[in-house]
Amino acid sequence: MSDLAVFARAADLAARAHVGQRRKGGDVPYVGHVLEVAMLVAEAGGSAEEVTAAVLHDVVEDSDITLDALAEGYGPEVARLVEGCTDDPAWADLPRPERKSRQAAHLPGEPEGVKRIKLADQTSNVRDISRLPEAWPPSDAAEYLEGAERVVAACRGASPALEAAFDAAVAEAMQKSGGTP
Amino acid sequence: MSDLAVFARAADLAARAHVGQRRKGGDVPYVGHVLEVAMLVAEAGGSAEEVTAAVLHDVVEDSDITLDALAEGYGPEVARLVEGCTDDPAWADLPRPERKSRQAAHLPGEPEGVKRIKLADQTSNVRDISRLPEAWPPSDAAEYLEGAERVVAACRGASPALEAAFDAAVAEAMQKSGGTP
Repeated sequence: MSDLAVFARAADLAARAHVGQRRKGGDVPYVGHVLEVAMLVAEAGGSAEEVTAAVLHDVVEDSDITLDALAEGYGPEVARLVEGCTDDPAWADLPRPERKSRQAAHLPGEPEGVKRIKLADQTSNVRDISRLPEAWPPSDAAEYLEGAERVVAACRGASPALEAAFDAAVAEAMQKSGGTP
Repeated sequence: MSDLAVFARAADLAARAHVGQRRKGGDVPYVGHVLEVAMLVAEAGGSAEEVTAAVLHDVVEDSDITLDALAEGYGPEVARLVEGCTDDPAWADLPRPERKSRQAAHLPGEPEGVKRIKLADQTSNVRDISRLPEAWPPSDAAEYLEGAERVVAACRGASPALEAAFDAAVAEAMQKSGGTP
């Protein structure tokens, strides 16, 4: 099966896994986020496995799909990349800054592909602040941006293109949410 | 740019184009349908252009994205395939059986790729009847299936695998909606 067919199957699975979820503050289906993350990883030259893992990066956290099922359906490399993007369930109840610190702390030991997916993920999230600023009160936006910067700092070196995209997204979000870049 | 990166960009565009739309009778985001259609075309061995056109096949009908914009962003072949999947705007107010007859009448002159996308499209729609039978009163389901059979009859020969998938979906939908296959 071609890389494209495998990815299309993964995107279909992601749409089903996230079916009831919306992005913060709006009517945007969650699958739109993971498709944007996959697009960013692909445009930055990520491998087929990375792009497939990007579209699947939240399914273990957000549905009952397991890493074992991903390994069976998409191979061990895709499953390993998704694992690196999946928060420890013990972090679920932590406040966001603490959760971001834990993510940042574990990223240096992860494969470069995980770092590229996290860079794209944080970029998509930060772009959401610009796309829907009314859903992000300034203090909330500032807190989110600080956490995202911490996660991204742990990923720098994995993709200059994605890092530049993140930095541009932050500058725009600061402006839109009334902060100063 | 790789086929995978082009497709990921198209899927991202489709998610945005269909953002406010849901599938009949449920909370399923519309983009889930076009991702399924793309998956079916890819698994049946469709070309990269066909898979990309499959994920975009409803954007001209359902958003302000034009065929010219698709030609510019994805090339003339993708735009031509989407054109073949796009109803004449004059059909919009026709009753469903009449609309399906018009679709069926124009399909024999279309490229094989259009027929493959339509086969996958009808298969995804018919699967919806089985997935959410409560949204489809039996008379509605029967009318839909009749129209879908007419469209598919105009596409047979383009992909035995997709035709078999369609036939299986119809058999299941007949059973679930209380008809007899």
